Amino acid sequence: MIDPVDAASQDVAHERFAALDLGSNSFHLLLAEFRDQRMVRLHTDRAMVRLAEGLGADRSLDSVVAERALEALRRFAPVIQDLPQDKVRVVGTNTLRAASTHADGFLEEAESILGAPIEIISGIEEARLIYAGVMAAAEGPPCLRCVVDIGGGSTELVRGMEVPRQLQSVNMGCVAFNRRFFSDGKIDSGKHNNFIRARRAAQAELQELQHIADDALVMGASGTVKSVSRVLNDGELLPILREDIDALADKVARCKTVEKIDLPNLDPQRRPVFAAGLAILHGIFRELNIQEMHISPYAIREGIVYDLAGRTHGGDHRADTVDNLMERGEIDRDQAKRVANTALQFFGQLNPHAQVNQRRLLHWAADLHELGLALSHSSFRKLGSYMIEHADMAGFSKSEQENLAYLVRNQRGDIKAVREHYGFHPDNDLLLCLRLACIVHRDHVDRTIDGLQLSVDGPGYRLQAPEDWLYAHPAIEDLLHMEVECWEEKSIKVKLISS
Amino acid sequence: MIDPVDAASQDVAHERFAALDLGSNSFHLLLAEFRDQRMVRLHTDRAMVRLAEGLGADRSLDSVVAERALEALRRFAPVIQDLPQDKVRVVGTNTLRAASTHADGFLEEAESILGAPIEIISGIEEARLIYAGVMAAAEGPPCLRCVVDIGGGSTELVRGMEVPRQLQSVNMGCVAFNRRFFSDGKIDSGKHNNFIRARRAAQAELQELQHIADDALVMGASGTVKSVSRVLNDGELLPILREDIDALADKVARCKTVEKIDLPNLDPQRRPVFAAGLAILHGIFRELNIQEMHISPYAIREGIVYDLAGRTHGGDHRADTVDNLMERGEIDRDQAKRVANTALQFFGQLNPHAQVNQRRLLHWAADLHELGLALSHSSFRKLGSYMIEHADMAGFSKSEQENLAYLVRNQRGDIKAVREHYGFHPDNDLLLCLRLACIVHRDHVDRTIDGLQLSVDGPGYRLQAPEDWLYAHPAIEDLLHMEVECWEEKSIKVKLISS
Repeated sequence: MIDPVDAASQDVAHERFAALDLGSNSFHLLLAEFRDQRMVRLHTDRAMVRLAEGLGADRSLDSVVAERALEALRRFAPVIQDLPQDKVRVVGTNTLRAASTHADGFLEEAESILGAPIEIISGIEEARLIYAGVMAAAEGPPCLRCVVDIGGGSTELVRGMEVPRQLQSVNMGCVAFNRRFFSDGKIDSGKHNNFIRARRAAQAELQELQHIADDALVMGASGTVKSVSRVLNDGELLPILREDIDALADKVARCKTVEKIDLPNLDPQRRPVFAAGLAILHGIFRELNIQEMHISPYAIREGIVYDLAGRTHGGDHRADTVDNLMERGEIDRDQAKRVANTALQFFGQLNPHAQVNQRRLLHWAADLHELGLALSHSSFRKLGSYMIEHADMAGFSKSEQENLAYLVRNQRGDIKAVREHYGFHPDNDLLLCLRLACIVHRDHVDRTIDGLQLSVDGPGYRLQAPEDWLYAHPAIEDLLHMEVECWEEKSIKVKLISS
Repeated sequence: MIDPVDAASQDVAHERFAALDLGSNSFHLLLAEFRDQRMVRLHTDRAMVRLAEGLGADRSLDSVVAERALEALRRFAPVIQDLPQDKVRVVGTNTLRAASTHADGFLEEAESILGAPIEIISGIEEARLIYAGVMAAAEGPPCLRCVVDIGGGSTELVRGMEVPRQLQSVNMGCVAFNRRFFSDGKIDSGKHNNFIRARRAAQAELQELQHIADDALVMGASGTVKSVSRVLNDGELLPILREDIDALADKVARCKTVEKIDLPNLDPQRRPVFAAGLAILHGIFRELNIQEMHISPYAIREGIVYDLAGRTHGGDHRADTVDNLMERGEIDRDQAKRVANTALQFFGQLNPHAQVNQRRLLHWAADLHELGLALSHSSFRKLGSYMIEHADMAGFSKSEQENLAYLVRNQRGDIKAVREHYGFHPDNDLLLCLRLACIVHRDHVDRTIDGLQLSVDGPGYRLQAPEDWLYAHPAIEDLLHMEVECWEEKSIKVKLISS
């Protein structure tokens, strides 16, 4: 751990970024800055919260575990509180993915402590960020790599070169497997062997990924991998060799109980979940036929910081993701561009000082508004929004996907009532601008809206349109009147004024 | 109308097919046979049921209208009752699409009267069948055509040459528009003109389709178009010219009430919905800039008969649809083939005399089982099944799509409980065979199941597998034990026996 640095008191000549990873086993904080395009770690902190232990069958979070988690966040909060919002990213993974659907206020409380939003990310997004982190520290010439990161709730595997080619997230982690196979603390009961059962389950999960490490330089990241490396290499982070891990697995499998595991250089905090983590790692070595695994000093939090820095400097992965989805969905790019331009023009009138992220969201919603159309004529909005909600969208958080899906779903017609929940608060400004743009270009024709003026009017909106413009576009005028009715259903007044 | 022919009493040297179209305005029956590859109509019947009039806001069907419909079916039933099941197709369109979600037993009663299943089809499938019908009677050299069919609840527009290139279904029809714009029987009230309002609404619906008739020979089909043609052409089915329909629309718009419409050659049964139908047709002429519309003697029921005959003789459109979806979804065809072969092998053991349609369904489920995978790693089954349920799948009925979606959704993992409903009854035989095949090829490897034997065992199943086969595949054996547990959750016993 590096000495803490008071972020606010420093002369910030360099841009600073903070990443906080709320994992299922531990929480990791990183404060870093870039000097000559190299990341320098200013402060790191870690809390072994074992969040996954607190997840009930009903997806609620045990109150003791929740308090342990909030306690850690109170310690982390001062480091990130004073940074601008676009320089901080807090991500929740496996356990919070599950718990986020259970509205018990934990996430809201965590956010209020941190003063920053928590993004729930998918396993695939997690894998992408891990790969970005590992690659930031990778040395040597470009080559095929396979990155393995065993977390508390899930395991990510990525194959790629400079960029990932295959991203995988498997539902197995050291905390979850510990609960499943070692809840009674026993390893070898004489009758059956829990270590072997756990390893067999891990191998079953990997059956479809047998070739993911073929011909690749294998890199391991994060706690489980590091702890095994240290045990095997006198406390050093040196590569894990196949014969060594085979022998270690044999030894652990022969222990009677988890308590009895006695190994050099094993962090006592790690010990409770070490057998489960080792079973998974050994299963990976066996099923993927790995002979040697190098250890990466970086993992997801470094990936987050690199990703944030990239966003700030023009390389937003989300734009590539949207582009890719447009390609797959055979979207009419001319129409997407028309609707995006007009929607953004309205939005600029309404909200000239909006955050860049809001404008981007509107742009992407316009890009994707016809997503389902290649598959279905009558249900395309429903289908497109479902695809957006459930696709692996690199760079996007779950709530960004939900917000995009909401906009696409409601691009026209009745505005569906939705249940607001953690991370999802429908934005009427964005929705109105998108809907107006869809109306203006409903016939897929370029058309200027110069002279039209959208503004806030009390709790509602006012759209002013030149009389001759409306006269020239009677079908649009009809649709605008219908639009006013749609918002009235939601008790929102939209005044249409011809001038 | 052609003289009725008793289907059963004839010497059936030629194959006979029956089509029944349960439309929103009228029901149409056609019994036909093929002689020298030309369709010969043996019997036709029609009942003006105006089903759309009976559809309530809650999607229930008014009991008087429902009785009117069942009465018509009782008249039709004798004609189709004695034909083999694969020679009869009964389709329900717009109104039944809406009503089918309301479980009031109407469809079940209708099926029991007919002795044949009713397929609810999408607007796009409706458009495809109409085009097939119109093309069957089309004369002259191949050229670009645009087919227009105004129904009671929806209007279909198709652009194509030998095959459709653009299929559209718009939610406007003569019965629905009559309810919406002429419910008080008034046309020109002095204050506002309902005919003009209806036409304007039709034009607004067509804004995105302005170019669908460009450079095409325009063909109209079905009742509304035919009735206008007859009114304009002394009772003959001659082309409708733009100047003539302009003048007719003018005349009708100036009538005070629907009652007052007095036109030559107008079938009195058609009169109640004539103004609404004409407003839609005139809106189409104006918005699509049509100068002349030819009249097709054939429409959807002829399309259904041609489609049925094609299915029987190897040209099943559904196979093309699945192939197309596999292409779009970037599906691994080797894996699809592996799973399909193994699933069909199991199914053949279980049910050697199964209907060909069941085998096809299983085959297509295997073809599409990885559909969502290009978009999402963790939610692909959910996503794929949603896509199957909501896509426009040419040739498929809604219930076939639901059954496919169910199989894809439950290809592995817990078997979700579902609400059975009209047309949807999950088939355990198919599901078990698909799931077993997914297990056998989970690692995407070719593998023979020779020696394995699946059979019915009381109310459950029994899977017999050679001991050495299981020994050679320990991961599969594990998964098979888990499979047994999945079915136990549904209280279905699957015995796994090593022999």
